[in-house]
Amino acid sequence: MDLPLAPLLAALDLVSAVSFAATGALVASRKELDILGFVWFAVITGVGGGTTRDLILGEPVFWVEDPTPVIACILTAIVTHFAAHMMEYRYRYILWLDAFGMALVSVVGTLKALDAGAGVTVAIAMGVITANVGGIIRDTLGHEPSVILRREIYVAASMLGAAACAALVLSGAGREAAALAGFGLAFTLRIVALWRGWSLPAYRSRPGRKNPPTGF
Amino acid sequence: MDLPLAPLLAALDLVSAVSFAATGALVASRKELDILGFVWFAVITGVGGGTTRDLILGEPVFWVEDPTPVIACILTAIVTHFAAHMMEYRYRYILWLDAFGMALVSVVGTLKALDAGAGVTVAIAMGVITANVGGIIRDTLGHEPSVILRREIYVAASMLGAAACAALVLSGAGREAAALAGFGLAFTLRIVALWRGWSLPAYRSRPGRKNPPTGF
Amino acid sequence: MDLPLAPLLAALDLVSAVSFAATGALVASRKELDILGFVWFAVITGVGGGTTRDLILGEPVFWVEDPTPVIACILTAIVTHFAAHMMEYRYRYILWLDAFGMALVSVVGTLKALDAGAGVTVAIAMGVITANVGGIIRDTLGHEPSVILRREIYVAASMLGAAACAALVLSGAGREAAALAGFGLAFTLRIVALWRGWSLPAYRSRPGRKNPPTGF
Repeated sequence: MDLPLAPLLAALDLVSAVSFAATGALVASRKELDILGFVWFAVITGVGGGTTRDLILGEPVFWVEDPTPVIACILTAIVTHFAAHMMEYRYRYILWLDAFGMALVSVVGTLKALDAGAGVTVAIAMGVITANVGGIIRDTLGHEPSVILRREIYVAASMLGAAACAALVLSGAGREAAALAGFGLAFTLRIVALWRGWSLPAYRSRPGRKNPPTGF
Repeated sequence: MDLPLAPLLAALDLVSAVSFAATGALVASRKELDILGFVWFAVITGVGGGTTRDLILGEPVFWVEDPTPVIACILTAIVTHFAAHMMEYRYRYILWLDAFGMALVSVVGTLKALDAGAGVTVAIAMGVITANVGGIIRDTLGHEPSVILRREIYVAASMLGAAACAALVLSGAGREAAALAGFGLAFTLRIVALWRGWSLPAYRSRPGRKNPPTGF
Repeated sequence: MDLPLAPLLAALDLVSAVSFAATGALVASRKELDILGFVWFAVITGVGGGTTRDLILGEPVFWVEDPTPVIACILTAIVTHFAAHMMEYRYRYILWLDAFGMALVSVVGTLKALDAGAGVTVAIAMGVITANVGGIIRDTLGHEPSVILRREIYVAASMLGAAACAALVLSGAGREAAALAGFGLAFTLRIVALWRGWSLPAYRSRPGRKNPPTGF
């Protein structure tokens, strides 16, 4: 295949920033914030995960050199501010977009970590961080329960996608194939989980023995 | 004018750290914390924004080399711990000080980003981050609604000040003039907004069509 | 004494990561999260403080080169998920472990900062950050009041331990002696405070004058 891969990846990268930003801006709309609140939530959700990844890896933060993703998030915020009611109505498309973005950045984060010389554990962690930290900050600032407090298949999908991608790269598969397989796994898992209402089993506290601990 | 600019800037820098720290310590007093709670809130509010800015820019964190701002924040916390009732009573002066600090660090953050080679979007973002992230962490840890959830003219003032400063520098104006103009714009806007009770218009959710979306 | 110090320190380091991770996983169990929720809380609590320390110091993040601490946190999360009821019942041992971990990383953080060339204020701050930031993130994400909102002797113990360690190193005492003294002070203070129910005095707002401030 002879697709021009770099511009394709850049375009996909923007799609995932925009999809994350849209979920951030929709939180701002539920809180009935002003336009700058929309921008904050969109930008933090859109680039928060990748920023955390780059800081931990010790790499230059990706949007400092080329702020296109930030500008895309700001535009998403502005569009959402004027069209949030339409987007709420089409929330299922946002969920698809968000699943697409999550699956994409899970493998992008993993590949970036491997390129930076990280081992497999760190690479998977970076995929998970890129996909989830933006949303966690969004929900913490918006006083909503974040993905780590819900039992949706979201963190799990990004982790399995990142793991598949890392395992394939380390076992000598081509990067494109590894990325595509990891992306496909994460995306499919998330979409099927949304469709079927899957969730992970919760820890249920057992009734303890009598005489529960009374502190120290 | 032949003012010794460097010591003047250093002094102004301390004034803004102290004013942010005071707003942090007053949150601690409202929560009736102990003295170390005052210190945490003062330090995090006082240096949190600049720390985030430096991490993202990949610059050394400003207080690691010279911890004077941290010491100033600690002293502010101690003074506030013993005099918070007087400061609450004079809260309007804290608001003035806070507006001063916000306007100052908005242009300082912008200039630091430009010096580090950042473009105009990133430079404005750094001004806004320096001015607002400390307060956002303060409010998140203190379980209070942060500036991004309120509709005050605060983020807007710092953004317009940062934008004016960046635009003037890039159009060839002197740094001092650009800084002064940006500072004056941000400070004036904030003070007038406080005085007149200005706020930005909120997004109001429209009544949707019948049959609202039922998830996926 | 001729103990092999490096492997001993590495082992102690793991013990503190595991003890912090256990407190994180127990928050996940109280929230009845799924297994990945346990892993998030364990990893963030276990390595969050040290990660923040390394970012601020501009050092490589400690678990990127060698992810053993992250793996230890993940294993802790898995064990806790299946045995949380037993651990809740033995919560007092977790508190001892946590006190051990807090005291240890307070001096480890301080020594790492001094090695990186930081002054005494920054070194103490790094000890405090290493010992406390993981727990603060844990409590913020878990919607529980963090140590900075409670008046326990926890931050105080880590600060005094870090200060003692830094003071001894700078006054020419050996690193081992300084570390041991700082560790002993922080650990003892925390344990005695737990045992005796000590806390720091709270700031109590005084009744103000009549006519309280009415904003700006």
